[in-house]
Amino acid sequence: MELRDTLEQSTFDRPAEADWFQYRLKHEDGTSKARRGEFVTPHGAVQTPAFMPVGTQGTVKGLEIGMVRQTGAEMILGNTYHLSLRPGDDIVAELGGLHRFMDWQGPILTDSGGFQIFSLAQMRKITEKEAIFQSHIDGRKIHLSPERSIEIQENLGSDIAMVLDHVVELPNETKVIREAMDRSIRWAKRCQDAASRKDQAQFAIVQGGLDESLRVECAERLAELNFPGYAIGGLSVGEPPPEMYRILDATCPTLPANKPRYLMGVGRPEDLLEGIRRGVDLFDCVMPTRNGRNALAFTDEGTVRLRNAKHQRDPTPLDSKSVPQVAGLSRAYFRHLFMAKEMLGPILLSLHNVAYYQRLMREARQAIEEDRFEAYYEQKMAGWSSGG
Amino acid sequence: MELRDTLEQSTFDRPAEADWFQYRLKHEDGTSKARRGEFVTPHGAVQTPAFMPVGTQGTVKGLEIGMVRQTGAEMILGNTYHLSLRPGDDIVAELGGLHRFMDWQGPILTDSGGFQIFSLAQMRKITEKEAIFQSHIDGRKIHLSPERSIEIQENLGSDIAMVLDHVVELPNETKVIREAMDRSIRWAKRCQDAASRKDQAQFAIVQGGLDESLRVECAERLAELNFPGYAIGGLSVGEPPPEMYRILDATCPTLPANKPRYLMGVGRPEDLLEGIRRGVDLFDCVMPTRNGRNALAFTDEGTVRLRNAKHQRDPTPLDSKSVPQVAGLSRAYFRHLFMAKEMLGPILLSLHNVAYYQRLMREARQAIEEDRFEAYYEQKMAGWSSGG
Ligand SMILES: [Zn+2]
Ligand SMILES: [Zn+2]
Repeated sequence: MELRDTLEQSTFDRPAEADWFQYRLKHEDGTSKARRGEFVTPHGAVQTPAFMPVGTQGTVKGLEIGMVRQTGAEMILGNTYHLSLRPGDDIVAELGGLHRFMDWQGPILTDSGGFQIFSLAQMRKITEKEAIFQSHIDGRKIHLSPERSIEIQENLGSDIAMVLDHVVELPNETKVIREAMDRSIRWAKRCQDAASRKDQAQFAIVQGGLDESLRVECAERLAELNFPGYAIGGLSVGEPPPEMYRILDATCPTLPANKPRYLMGVGRPEDLLEGIRRGVDLFDCVMPTRNGRNALAFTDEGTVRLRNAKHQRDPTPLDSKSVPQVAGLSRAYFRHLFMAKEMLGPILLSLHNVAYYQRLMREARQAIEEDRFEAYYEQKMAGWSSGG
Repeated sequence: MELRDTLEQSTFDRPAEADWFQYRLKHEDGTSKARRGEFVTPHGAVQTPAFMPVGTQGTVKGLEIGMVRQTGAEMILGNTYHLSLRPGDDIVAELGGLHRFMDWQGPILTDSGGFQIFSLAQMRKITEKEAIFQSHIDGRKIHLSPERSIEIQENLGSDIAMVLDHVVELPNETKVIREAMDRSIRWAKRCQDAASRKDQAQFAIVQGGLDESLRVECAERLAELNFPGYAIGGLSVGEPPPEMYRILDATCPTLPANKPRYLMGVGRPEDLLEGIRRGVDLFDCVMPTRNGRNALAFTDEGTVRLRNAKHQRDPTPLDSKSVPQVAGLSRAYFRHLFMAKEMLGPILLSLHNVAYYQRLMREARQAIEEDRFEAYYEQKMAGWSSGG
């Protein structure tokens, strides 16, 4: 018996090769720098601004893949670091690639492993050639060079591969940040040179810490390399949100207007809107699923802690605008599921939160089209701070 | 905002009150004692033989309720013991009953707590008046009388309530088994006398251990009380399967032919077919979901252990006849999910297993209608022992 081949036998129309990795600007908001666009991949187009749910280990945690589709998510993220350790990128390749492995027929972006080396790996050592670190699973020593990162991502067969970057802690000395930035640019070039799949594009990653001039320099030097997309990395690592917004203010205008802009690992609903009004097109974050597992719900009236005793007899729906699986359920039922440690709590709340993020993006796209993004932004911010 | 009322506002036609709790025999198999019937409840009819997935704590573990519907399950089981402890039957009642609480609009059967007192509770003491035991959650002392069991089940609002019975370990002295059986009959009568909801029926439970004459006596004495359904309890507690089949051989013919027969807590696919060919109509068991969480899949070729290293690069589908969410996934992907401890493994495999049990029941019903149940039974048994 043959597994479904997601590209050859799937029902969607594969975009023409000439359109692959083209970014088309559809509309610029009249009230902010927000932009409404479309980015085409071999597995279909993505309407931007867009939020990518994170499928670290080949699954968006807690969600059957049809549920991910149901939320309206068009592109998801996979993790090079995790998948290369388990099950192994060779195994994923042998099984037909990540799309087929996890039965997701839409676009996939894979990160490069750079952030996980920074955040997860033990005993890491960065040389000009590569990063060397221990696996968080079995302590095995791993060598990850720019070339190996691309090899892994080509094995996974993602639509978008991220270049391997050198992420440093913040705050840090300017000298350390500059060295990591310079190395990240050299590594970006090496990733570009290592590419062998024409159905995969690479996005470069702008580094430079919280130093605006370094960020601008990095963006300009990477722009010369003419990548099909640009990410802003090394943020959301503990700095105050206004610092991040300041860096976006400085960086976004420097990025090529005809390429998508991706703010990595961000964030809260308010951070997404702050990014969009500064011209960001793509986001990813574990927050909707991680908070979903921890009984924290996102709603238009702010976050709701469902383990709170006040919900014990609370008949009100969690969110009547949520997906059908959630809209008919009371907060008391959610509280019961979490108190009883039933899997259905994390499942349904992850579904709700991812769907909430997707609804936010749909609303944002429409607001941009109608030149009222700032009013939309103000309205959402007011709702979130009203305290449901 | 109002939650959906499952009875008043739901889309299905509520059966006419005159039909509630009627069992209609549709066809008797020409090759065995298997029977094809229909049992009507206030929340709709159940086609028998039927398997009820177990929703111990107000959720079929790991499954969104739409997934439970999708498998074809028509009636599910809830646990009096668990739900009375958490969230509390008073809370469930206040929130509109168990149907509304968990958003299941079909029939629900609740057990009485008798089996959980036997299997879970610490420091239990059984008097003629009631069972007294400690909660497995917080050690609190609980008093459960027949009247209180019915009160809880009326608070939950299930369609079928089970009478409180006294379950004993097997093997045991005849004297102990007889005393527990006599008490179970007296308690059944007290449950009947305590009933106050006309939209809830009670099923009596035949006890008597592995002693055929006690079983027959118990069935005959309970039949005199004219319950709308009869269960066979106290089995599948560790005795060899042939012992259970022997008791079914003795008990089933004694039970009223115009009432449904429910074999409690059973079991493996082969046990279901063994029950059906002896005239059993209803089953419940945690096995499909528990095994699903433990990476054990049911298939027509027998069970498949998905953590087995031989599946590491196995591209074959787990079961191409499974539900759409599973049919396109490789055994290698399932192995990866379980090795990586991802929730999606238990979710999808619980879904598959419950769907497998429902498919088995659909096939069994059709085989009975076509007077070929024994041939069907032989074919399935041969497949299961072939070793997938
Ligand atoms: Zn090396
Ligand atoms: Zn008492």
